[in-house]
Amino acid sequence: MIIELIPSADETAADRLTDHLRSRGLHPWRGGEPSQLVLDPAPAPAVADELRALPEVADVISVPGKLRRTSRAYRSDTSIVELGNGTRIGGTEFVIAAGPCAVETATQLGTTAAAVHAAGARILRGGAYKPRTSPFSFQGLGTEGLRLLEAARAQTGLPVVTEVIEPADVEAVAASADIAQVGARNMQNFALLKELGRTRVPVLLKRGISATVDEWLLAAEYLLDGGNTSVILCERGIRSFDPSTRFTLDLSAIPVAKKLSHLPVIVDPSHAAGRVDLVAPLAKAAVGVGADGLIIDVHNDPATAACDAGQALTPEAFATLVNELRPILAAVGRPLATAATDEPATLASAVRA
Amino acid sequence: MIIELIPSADETAADRLTDHLRSRGLHPWRGGEPSQLVLDPAPAPAVADELRALPEVADVISVPGKLRRTSRAYRSDTSIVELGNGTRIGGTEFVIAAGPCAVETATQLGTTAAAVHAAGARILRGGAYKPRTSPFSFQGLGTEGLRLLEAARAQTGLPVVTEVIEPADVEAVAASADIAQVGARNMQNFALLKELGRTRVPVLLKRGISATVDEWLLAAEYLLDGGNTSVILCERGIRSFDPSTRFTLDLSAIPVAKKLSHLPVIVDPSHAAGRVDLVAPLAKAAVGVGADGLIIDVHNDPATAACDAGQALTPEAFATLVNELRPILAAVGRPLATAATDEPATLASAVRA
Amino acid sequence: MIIELIPSADETAADRLTDHLRSRGLHPWRGGEPSQLVLDPAPAPAVADELRALPEVADVISVPGKLRRTSRAYRSDTSIVELGNGTRIGGTEFVIAAGPCAVETATQLGTTAAAVHAAGARILRGGAYKPRTSPFSFQGLGTEGLRLLEAARAQTGLPVVTEVIEPADVEAVAASADIAQVGARNMQNFALLKELGRTRVPVLLKRGISATVDEWLLAAEYLLDGGNTSVILCERGIRSFDPSTRFTLDLSAIPVAKKLSHLPVIVDPSHAAGRVDLVAPLAKAAVGVGADGLIIDVHNDPATAACDAGQALTPEAFATLVNELRPILAAVGRPLATAATDEPATLASAVRA
Amino acid sequence: MIIELIPSADETAADRLTDHLRSRGLHPWRGGEPSQLVLDPAPAPAVADELRALPEVADVISVPGKLRRTSRAYRSDTSIVELGNGTRIGGTEFVIAAGPCAVETATQLGTTAAAVHAAGARILRGGAYKPRTSPFSFQGLGTEGLRLLEAARAQTGLPVVTEVIEPADVEAVAASADIAQVGARNMQNFALLKELGRTRVPVLLKRGISATVDEWLLAAEYLLDGGNTSVILCERGIRSFDPSTRFTLDLSAIPVAKKLSHLPVIVDPSHAAGRVDLVAPLAKAAVGVGADGLIIDVHNDPATAACDAGQALTPEAFATLVNELRPILAAVGRPLATAATDEPATLASAVRA
Repeated sequence: MIIELIPSADETAADRLTDHLRSRGLHPWRGGEPSQLVLDPAPAPAVADELRALPEVADVISVPGKLRRTSRAYRSDTSIVELGNGTRIGGTEFVIAAGPCAVETATQLGTTAAAVHAAGARILRGGAYKPRTSPFSFQGLGTEGLRLLEAARAQTGLPVVTEVIEPADVEAVAASADIAQVGARNMQNFALLKELGRTRVPVLLKRGISATVDEWLLAAEYLLDGGNTSVILCERGIRSFDPSTRFTLDLSAIPVAKKLSHLPVIVDPSHAAGRVDLVAPLAKAAVGVGADGLIIDVHNDPATAACDAGQALTPEAFATLVNELRPILAAVGRPLATAATDEPATLASAVRA
Repeated sequence: MIIELIPSADETAADRLTDHLRSRGLHPWRGGEPSQLVLDPAPAPAVADELRALPEVADVISVPGKLRRTSRAYRSDTSIVELGNGTRIGGTEFVIAAGPCAVETATQLGTTAAAVHAAGARILRGGAYKPRTSPFSFQGLGTEGLRLLEAARAQTGLPVVTEVIEPADVEAVAASADIAQVGARNMQNFALLKELGRTRVPVLLKRGISATVDEWLLAAEYLLDGGNTSVILCERGIRSFDPSTRFTLDLSAIPVAKKLSHLPVIVDPSHAAGRVDLVAPLAKAAVGVGADGLIIDVHNDPATAACDAGQALTPEAFATLVNELRPILAAVGRPLATAATDEPATLASAVRA
Repeated sequence: MIIELIPSADETAADRLTDHLRSRGLHPWRGGEPSQLVLDPAPAPAVADELRALPEVADVISVPGKLRRTSRAYRSDTSIVELGNGTRIGGTEFVIAAGPCAVETATQLGTTAAAVHAAGARILRGGAYKPRTSPFSFQGLGTEGLRLLEAARAQTGLPVVTEVIEPADVEAVAASADIAQVGARNMQNFALLKELGRTRVPVLLKRGISATVDEWLLAAEYLLDGGNTSVILCERGIRSFDPSTRFTLDLSAIPVAKKLSHLPVIVDPSHAAGRVDLVAPLAKAAVGVGADGLIIDVHNDPATAACDAGQALTPEAFATLVNELRPILAAVGRPLATAATDEPATLASAVRA
Repeated sequence: MIIELIPSADETAADRLTDHLRSRGLHPWRGGEPSQLVLDPAPAPAVADELRALPEVADVISVPGKLRRTSRAYRSDTSIVELGNGTRIGGTEFVIAAGPCAVETATQLGTTAAAVHAAGARILRGGAYKPRTSPFSFQGLGTEGLRLLEAARAQTGLPVVTEVIEPADVEAVAASADIAQVGARNMQNFALLKELGRTRVPVLLKRGISATVDEWLLAAEYLLDGGNTSVILCERGIRSFDPSTRFTLDLSAIPVAKKLSHLPVIVDPSHAAGRVDLVAPLAKAAVGVGADGLIIDVHNDPATAACDAGQALTPEAFATLVNELRPILAAVGRPLATAATDEPATLASAVRA
């Protein structure tokens, strides 16, 4: 059930109504529009009549079925997440993020960033905080990595996506990055999701390796529940029994998720397969299946990569792949996002203001 | 190790050498060329020298690694399976098989066959023998279904692929159909594979729902071991945990299998997802990932289909899909197999003679 | 719905009624008792009234829910499969089958059989026909293996369980063995199941490595549908993602299957784990979870075993395990089947007469 | 490589040596004994000689293979985690934790705690902080729940295990509870693990639903790496394809983990199956397979439980189960932990001092 507030209702009025509803044992959300409150499950019809009589309430609209904020029933068109350099994820244009798995040095990141930018990437990826299965593996550069990402953004104009792995780092990542990534292991780290829900930094939410699509969307719900509606889903492979790939890229999940939800969905073929020779065919398949973009591991010198060395493309291989993707993208009517607005990005925080 | 026979060596000489090798405890195969015998595992170097001295032997060639007949090491170019109407599976052209899951009536099959032919399918699919999880489900028309498939072939010129589910039916299916399909449940029905290995009917070998790529190729090895080299692999989804699709289409398996093996690989998006709305996106993804073709459920009246009603496209939806695939196929340099040789096919047995 | 025939109704009367029902578009089965016919799905109430009026019909009994022959609704007490030496599977006593994975030689089989007999096994296992993932692996001794099993039975008095892998071998195996095993790969080899359904040899039906419990019971339904009610289920591990065991023994499936079905259920810890060190703990767990028995790989010289060498217990380790199981069996009130009736078994065919 | 310090070396000497090794680019750990430092990977032999010459070093011992702190190679006997009431997990005695999934009210918790105590449980379980797949589900009472658990402990003398779901709550949980539980979703929440590694509260580490045993042990390594050696592993089911149970309890993982690691391992049959009727058979199987204990959902009124209502035993059913477990435990030589030391526990912090 959606409660439409009167035009003159301000935040205070919305908060007052929220408190009132809670005191009645209801659980209101802020809707997709500032003038909306949502009640799901819906209260009894008598309560709806009562609410309709309140002075702040313009209308009370019944909606059939479950009214999750991630669902197409809640919002029928695809959400678009817009970044500082004008890149729009979820629109007609197809968007590619690329860069190293882990930020290692200024040279490594700068060289790679310049190369992926030149080849057609619109977003720079790079991990400053690394969640590692083993405590003996390289754990990332931390805040020093954020500084290197900022420098690479200043140099190339590419907005930056980087992973955040614990609530304590959310503030720093949100202040620095253009997109905060939640990794597969943290898809159900609810404290992290709640903290990110309180920010307004766009979030790239990777699917857990054994999460159903429904659980993935419920994880996204934690973000939207907090008021952060800039959420991008990312399929990166599920755990299966065949050792020939590290994970099994579940491309069916893209049309399944897009049918259920208005959120944009991109694909990570690099971490899914863990094999450099499968990145290109899986990237092309992702275009065919209807993804809104890709996120790809590229390293200026893959043999020396500090993490996941076996899956990073060279800059040359990445450029070849982008050129192979162009005609396929044209064939499906999804042109590659162009570099029109490519002046160096301002600080992410300014961008989102 | 490959034993190259002298040019004048006939079948009798090859058989004599085979018997000799067996008497030595070795396990020779007929190689990819008529003039070759293969020994894998390879015998000791001294034995190689001995063999080289035999009058029928032109040369003895050492090959590193395991020498399976399905492997790229054994044959570096992709095998092409050629059918009666000139359709070649595994070449540059992309081939689509389409038709009903189960053959039901002459009208159902004829109407559907004409429609998929007009839309661009090059092979007619239809099940006469149906393996069913429950003994209470429709079990297929059997030989009557083969007759209906022959009639539809005569009418449209489309070669026919149909499933064979037990060794006792191999002779009948091989005499009637252009391609004998081995279903996922029978991928490791070794008696069936051995029986098909003794025929020369092309075989479409579906991947078992929990088979690794390696196990799939070993199942194909049973066919090649029997001397039947016309084998097409078909990915149709693996069992996973997410209930949103019936199976999880493992598109990574296509480039994995094609890298390991010279056999052509096609994709069945209909049985994988079990959802009509996912057939088109998964078909496009299959093109992107590098499959050699598709096999798609189409029914003239899906609502009445005797089996798997929820996954069959209408003829109209199929035609739309083929038209959407054309530009993508062009973009990846794999044109759709055309209708140039489309005179009504002769009987399959004649075709293969 | 169950149709109870009048006491004087003979087979001809039952057949006549069956034909009559089929002509009405119904699908009658022979029920658990000779005097019963079953209709499921049940026809309309009006039809029930009509049937009640027929002279051959004593009563028409409505049964709620789906009436599968494997279900507890169809038969509430556990089926007992009784063998020639008096061994009863599914009763209070716990039954252990043991022996080599593959029959290799008279010495190997005889030594192992004598040892497992002495240690407390009540059934001898041994494969004469071996389904192998690779055509290059040892494929079994075939009928020669059956002869060796018969000799070992004559020597020890132990009834024999051996695998049958294709319909053409059913007659030979049914004539020779006391229990015909259907392996995991063949759980949905419906031609094999139908052929076994026509015999009266007890069948050990292993669960497919990715079969749900429901699919497993439906496979058993093929056997009961053919009239063979002597069916034993066997859990042997499902395919999962963890490489530390070959398969994941799904012990929950035992109480799940026993709740749904009246069929006895035993456990194969040897093939599940593929690790000799896990056989004992998993065997004890199988007792705890309520299995009716075990089937265990034992080889007189595991290091030389022709198949699955890594999982066979030595005779000594098997004897130790049986002794460790005894107090646990006592604690759960399921004594180990004793050797009271241990005179050499007569021929299996005589036994079942 | 293990560096054995001289007996007179105090903490300052150990820290000085640690700093020295770090300055050399090495990564020393504190070993299982206070007098040990561990270097893994081991440095070059020349470095070993150099270290041997240092005044604080008594000996330098080479150890083959990977030297993880969780491994049997590092510590050959099973670690015992001892709690305030004298309960020892990992010793000969078998330990049962029981209580409600979520703490709801003083009455609910108190009633249940008294009942499970009387029936033979030695630890009280109850969730104050609840990680929930959906943001719309009950999220737990938080610190109020900790207070109720403390009250129930004071009343019954049972030490308390409760889940901690984010780093910010670690201090509060460690100060209140006797065991901090890390749930399956958080098994790779490395920030949480690191925070717990800095405390000395015993940790119950549940296996992730798609974690391999190796990944599970590496997660435990994060705890031991921080210096917290009181770690108990808990198997609670992995994600599989069969919908008949919520998860598939992987009982093989218990002997696998116990062979690789010295950590004690317990089993949660309640969350694994999600079915009240499977708790007893799976609990008995856990005894058979060699687990060190159980953790079981019990609720004084399951029908009203705020979470996972379908899996909680009534107090009566729990008492029956414990009585059925006693003879099985006796048969495997693992008596149930008795109530000898059952005076009301002091505060957990005091207990651990």
